[in-house]
Amino acid sequence: MPAKIAYLGPAGTFSEEAVLLYDNTAQRIPFPSFSAVAAAVESGMADEGIVAIENSIEGSVTDTLDMLIHDSPLRIKNELILPISQYLLVKKGTSSSEIKIIFSHPQALAQCRRFLERCFPKAQMVAALSTVAAVEEMLSCTSPSAAIAPGRAAVIYGTDILASGIQDQKSNVTRFVVLSVKDHAPTGHDKTSLCFSFSDDRAGLLFGVLTELAKYNVNLCKIESRPTKENLGRYIFLLDIDGHREDAIIAEILTRIEAQTSLFKVFGSYPRYQQK
Amino acid sequence: MPAKIAYLGPAGTFSEEAVLLYDNTAQRIPFPSFSAVAAAVESGMADEGIVAIENSIEGSVTDTLDMLIHDSPLRIKNELILPISQYLLVKKGTSSSEIKIIFSHPQALAQCRRFLERCFPKAQMVAALSTVAAVEEMLSCTSPSAAIAPGRAAVIYGTDILASGIQDQKSNVTRFVVLSVKDHAPTGHDKTSLCFSFSDDRAGLLFGVLTELAKYNVNLCKIESRPTKENLGRYIFLLDIDGHREDAIIAEILTRIEAQTSLFKVFGSYPRYQQK
Repeated sequence: MPAKIAYLGPAGTFSEEAVLLYDNTAQRIPFPSFSAVAAAVESGMADEGIVAIENSIEGSVTDTLDMLIHDSPLRIKNELILPISQYLLVKKGTSSSEIKIIFSHPQALAQCRRFLERCFPKAQMVAALSTVAAVEEMLSCTSPSAAIAPGRAAVIYGTDILASGIQDQKSNVTRFVVLSVKDHAPTGHDKTSLCFSFSDDRAGLLFGVLTELAKYNVNLCKIESRPTKENLGRYIFLLDIDGHREDAIIAEILTRIEAQTSLFKVFGSYPRYQQK
Repeated sequence: MPAKIAYLGPAGTFSEEAVLLYDNTAQRIPFPSFSAVAAAVESGMADEGIVAIENSIEGSVTDTLDMLIHDSPLRIKNELILPISQYLLVKKGTSSSEIKIIFSHPQALAQCRRFLERCFPKAQMVAALSTVAAVEEMLSCTSPSAAIAPGRAAVIYGTDILASGIQDQKSNVTRFVVLSVKDHAPTGHDKTSLCFSFSDDRAGLLFGVLTELAKYNVNLCKIESRPTKENLGRYIFLLDIDGHREDAIIAEILTRIEAQTSLFKVFGSYPRYQQK
């Protein structure tokens, strides 16, 4: 039986492309928010959920980090890396010289600003609630128009593709994580993601935690801070480190870190992504 | 002569409220982007520029961080902290029971989701390119409608305020920084902001830098990472530390950090914000 995988819908988003990259035989179930994806996995409606966690240009997807910190008991079971490319979609037969209006989410419009200024200096930009909503608005618009959306949306909505790779930054990839009730068994080339904070407000306490990693020569792949949402200047720190939480040295380090911190949560251990 | 201060316009944004908090006698000059605010100060069109850098719920304003890292020679001369409150604005005389449509930027709609679900479960949410554009769309809409925007927009556009403080998270503040050609002279209660990266991709090198701070017992107020925009997994680190770059100890530490890093940039030293 194919796995049931929840993702941030609707169909046609980069999240759906990530599910296809991870398991193209899975049954893909779209949900309207990150927290709904998590709830679907927690309740058994889906076996796994896939959410974006980091983009090479924009940085962290803070909604995902905040959900892992505050709201969900799910573990990270895997990671994958998807190249991101924006497309200009039109109704079948529309030519570029006719286009009067371009629909997209404000963030996608911003990502393609240089392309739009050069190629469509006179077109009107219209905000939509998502890139997929933009395709629907384009299809129902009576003036000649276009939408900026992922390539997958062209397949689903049967549109023409007028231009591809139109984002200003060409090397653009997004890292997704696979959420599940359990994380991954050790494979020998793993990463562990965790977060912690301190009851005292000196962020300098962070140094004590990093000392534990340095003592055992464990590599820190990523460090990030998020607001506690209580007071400005109080942070939760998120680390990705090399190794699996069941490895003897990592287990010892995690125990020592937990002893120095107030909030402490291991999001999971999982194999480092290998390009297919 | 009043100072000329550039900010992210149009008039009616939280950025304009921040300028009023900083200097209510200044001549306020709106610009359409963070980079335009910086360009206005660099070219002398404005004496100073004010941009948001961090919110207590959302975290860092990454556009501002990336501009400081990559694009602007300007220094941080001051910081200030503004309470953030969203308002529901309507045309004069509109009552809440009539409202069919609510306009705002997708982020503001998301920030007020619980309020909207409870009080306007049947209203249609319509995306706008900014909160101020939402007010303009509301004013020209023929159906009874409302817009979510800062309180300042009600003053400027002469609307009624139906509800205030409608964001889901009540304790919400944004930290702004004042950009100028020079930073601030030492006052005795200062902070210094800087960034650096390593030519090697082991983020573990960060430990060496933090060791310099720990050795001299200098407090780290904030640590943040941003993508280099070249490869996923390569980061630029941003630190806020206590002390002024002209203090002897801080000057020594900065020299030592510069010797260990490839990219190295001090954004400036400035007085820690004191509530007025």
